[in-house]
Amino acid sequence: MSAEIICIGTELLLGEILNANAQYLAQQLADLGIPHYYQSVVGDNIPRIHQVLTVACARSQLLIFTGGLGPTPDDLTTEAIAQFFQTPLEENAEVLADITEKFARRGRPMAPSNRKQALIPAGANVLPNPRGSAPGMIWQPRPNVTILTFPGVPKEMHAMWQETAVPFLRSQGWGKTTIYSQVLRFWGIPESTLAEKVSPLLNLENPTVAPYAGNGEVRLRISAKAATESAALDLITPVAQQIRDIAGDNYFGQDDDTLASVTGNLLKAAQQTVSVAESCTGGGLGQLWTTVPGSSAYFWGGVISYDNQVKVNLLGVNPEDLQREGAVSDGVAQQMAVGVRDRLNTTWGLSITGVAGPDGGTEAKPVGLVYIGVAGPDTVESFRFLFGVFQEREFIRWLSACSAIDLLRRKLIAQ
Amino acid sequence: MSAEIICIGTELLLGEILNANAQYLAQQLADLGIPHYYQSVVGDNIPRIHQVLTVACARSQLLIFTGGLGPTPDDLTTEAIAQFFQTPLEENAEVLADITEKFARRGRPMAPSNRKQALIPAGANVLPNPRGSAPGMIWQPRPNVTILTFPGVPKEMHAMWQETAVPFLRSQGWGKTTIYSQVLRFWGIPESTLAEKVSPLLNLENPTVAPYAGNGEVRLRISAKAATESAALDLITPVAQQIRDIAGDNYFGQDDDTLASVTGNLLKAAQQTVSVAESCTGGGLGQLWTTVPGSSAYFWGGVISYDNQVKVNLLGVNPEDLQREGAVSDGVAQQMAVGVRDRLNTTWGLSITGVAGPDGGTEAKPVGLVYIGVAGPDTVESFRFLFGVFQEREFIRWLSACSAIDLLRRKLIAQ
Repeated sequence: MSAEIICIGTELLLGEILNANAQYLAQQLADLGIPHYYQSVVGDNIPRIHQVLTVACARSQLLIFTGGLGPTPDDLTTEAIAQFFQTPLEENAEVLADITEKFARRGRPMAPSNRKQALIPAGANVLPNPRGSAPGMIWQPRPNVTILTFPGVPKEMHAMWQETAVPFLRSQGWGKTTIYSQVLRFWGIPESTLAEKVSPLLNLENPTVAPYAGNGEVRLRISAKAATESAALDLITPVAQQIRDIAGDNYFGQDDDTLASVTGNLLKAAQQTVSVAESCTGGGLGQLWTTVPGSSAYFWGGVISYDNQVKVNLLGVNPEDLQREGAVSDGVAQQMAVGVRDRLNTTWGLSITGVAGPDGGTEAKPVGLVYIGVAGPDTVESFRFLFGVFQEREFIRWLSACSAIDLLRRKLIAQ
Repeated sequence: MSAEIICIGTELLLGEILNANAQYLAQQLADLGIPHYYQSVVGDNIPRIHQVLTVACARSQLLIFTGGLGPTPDDLTTEAIAQFFQTPLEENAEVLADITEKFARRGRPMAPSNRKQALIPAGANVLPNPRGSAPGMIWQPRPNVTILTFPGVPKEMHAMWQETAVPFLRSQGWGKTTIYSQVLRFWGIPESTLAEKVSPLLNLENPTVAPYAGNGEVRLRISAKAATESAALDLITPVAQQIRDIAGDNYFGQDDDTLASVTGNLLKAAQQTVSVAESCTGGGLGQLWTTVPGSSAYFWGGVISYDNQVKVNLLGVNPEDLQREGAVSDGVAQQMAVGVRDRLNTTWGLSITGVAGPDGGTEAKPVGLVYIGVAGPDTVESFRFLFGVFQEREFIRWLSACSAIDLLRRKLIAQ
C-alpha cells in the first residue's frame, strides 16, 4: 500500500504560493509510516485532473487530494473525481445544514454557490471540516483505491487530517509503526554552536537528533521509531535529558511551549505580574504575551509609546534625557520600564526602544539597534542588542519582543 | 508546447523540506509565458523516475528536473534519464576539468565520487553551474522532448536558470509572451459574494480573473498574456476598473497594499493621527499599524488595557459601567476609544475589546464577540462583530485588528 499526494490549484502552477500542504502531508505520512513515492500538482481543470487520476490509480492505492473544494466555479476537485469514477454527485443534507448553520451563526447570507460545497459523490463519506465551510470526502470508489480530499486552506486541512483522517487510516490497518518526536527549543544560542555542543548525538540512529533553525529560535527534533509511543519515549527521554544538561538556560521548552507560555508559567508560579512599554515594536510585545490563553493572570497591559510625547506624558520619561540621549538609549529604555511598572503597578516592567528600519538608521544608531529595559521589584537594567546585520523590519521587531521575554525568563529562573 | 516540473528527492517525500524550487520555476515559467500544467515529485529511485518520465513525455514537451545531481550514491537523476532514453553516459572532459579546478581553488581534496558529476548522456549539452560543482544538462533525446536538469540547491539552480536556461528557452522561440498580473484586495466581503458580483468576469480568457481568500481578506488576481507589459496592462486596466466599481468600498488596494498602509496614507493625506486602546488584541492593533515604515507620521501609540484596572486608571473608563455592562460591551469600547484619543491627543482613537477565547466565553458573550470603538474628532461609535464560529484565538485577534483599521479606512473615505 502506498500513498500519493495530489495538490490541485492553478495558484501552485503560477508559483503564487509555496506547496506547504504537500510538506505537511508528507511529514504526516512519514510519521505514520505510510509509504509515499509520488506527489503531483495539477491546475483546476477537469481533463488534466483526470489525467493525473489515471496515472495515480495505476501506481498508488491511497490518493490524498488538497485544494479545489471552495464555492467558486474554478473549484472542480469533487466534480472531477466523481466524473472520473462515473458516479453522480448528490447533495448531502447534513453538510448543507451544517454550512447553512455556520453562515447563520456568523450572521452572513449564504451565497447559492456555497450550496455546491454540499455535493459529494454517491457512496462517499463526508470528511467533516470543523474550521471552515468546505468538507472533504473519504471514498473507496473501487477496490484498492481510497480517496481523501481536503480544502487547500492549511488550518482547515490540518484539523481534518488530525481529527478524522488519521483515525480512519489507522482503522484501515495503515500506519502501524509509530515515529514519535519531541522538539526541544532554545533561545539565545546560534544553531551552529548548539550543533557543535551536541555533535555526538547528531549521529544516533534511533532516536535521531536533527537541528532546525528559524525565526531566531533553534530547535532539536528527537525522533524515535518504536512499536508504541511509550517505547519511543523510553528511547527519547535520556537523550533529551543529556541535551538539556548541555544547553543550560538556553533551553526554554519543548514541543508547543513558547517563550511567552514558559515565562508566563514562571510568573504565575511566582505570583508576579508584568507590563510593557513599547516603542519600535508598536504593540508586538504585548501581542506576544497575549498569544497565551489565560495570560491575563500575569500580563496586565502596557503603553505603546511610539511617539516621543507619549513616552513623556504616559510613562514619565524625562524630556531632557530624551533630547540628550535620544529615544533609542539605555536611559530611556530604563525609564520606560520603570514608568510602566509603576503606572500599572506590576512586579515587572519590560520596555523596548530601537531602530526597526528600513529608514531612520544612523552610523551611531544603525537599523537593528535595540535597547530592552527590565525593571524588577527594586532594580532596573537595560540590555543592548544589534539585530540588524541582514534583517528586515518585521524580523527585528519579532526578535526584540522575543528577546524581552527571554530576558525576563532568565531573571525569573535566577530569582 | 508545455512544460512540466519534476522534482527529485526523498527529502521532499519525507516532508523534510518545502518544495521552494517548484515555486521558483513555476513563477519563472509564468513570467516567460510558457504554459505549465503539471508538477511531479519522486524519490531518488531509478524505476520510479522512469515511471514519471513515461507519464511526462506523453503530456509535456519541456521537462525541467531539479535535484539528484550530487556526488552521493543516492543522486541518480542523470543516470536514470540516460537509461530511460537508452543512451550511454560519457565523461565530459571540460566538466571534469571545471570540477577539479573548483576543488583545487577551495583547497579541498576532490573525492572520487565527484568524478561522477562529470558524466552526461552522449549527445547532451552541459548546463554550466557557476555556483557549485554539479552541472546540469540541456538535451533533446528525441523530437518533442527537451530536458533541462538542475541541482536542488536553490542558489545554484537560480543562477543556472537565469544565466543559461532562459536564453536557451528564448532561442527556441519559447517564452515570447509575457504574463502580467495585478492583485486587487478586498475587506469586508466574503469570497463567494464577491465572486458572484463579478461572475461574468470570471469567465474572461485574456485577462483571466481568479478569486483567492485567506486571512480574512479576499483577492482577485487579474492576469493578462501579451507581448509586452504595457500591452498586458492595457488588457488589465479596464477590467480592474470594472471590478473596483462593483466592489465599492470593499476594495481597499492592490498588489503590496495592506489595510494598514492604505489607511495610513489616508491619514497622512488628511494630516490626521490615530491612537489605540486594546484589550483582547493585547497590542496587535498597534503592531499592525507599525508594520508600515514611516507610520510614526500618523500613529502615535496607545494603551494596552488587558486588565480592567488599566482601563480605569489609564483610559478613564468608568468603573461602574465596567461593572454593569462588562468589559466586552459597546459602552466600554466607546470609553476606551475616547480615553485614548484624549490622552494621546490624536484625531482618532480606535479601541478593541472582545472575547478571543478559547476560554472565557459565555452564552451572552461568546468567544469571537468583539466590540470596536471609533472615536473621531467629535463623535464616537462602536461596532459589534462576531468572529467566533470556527475561529481560533489568534485569528479572532487578527480579524479584530484588521477590522478596526478597516472601519477607520471607511470613515476616512467618507470624510
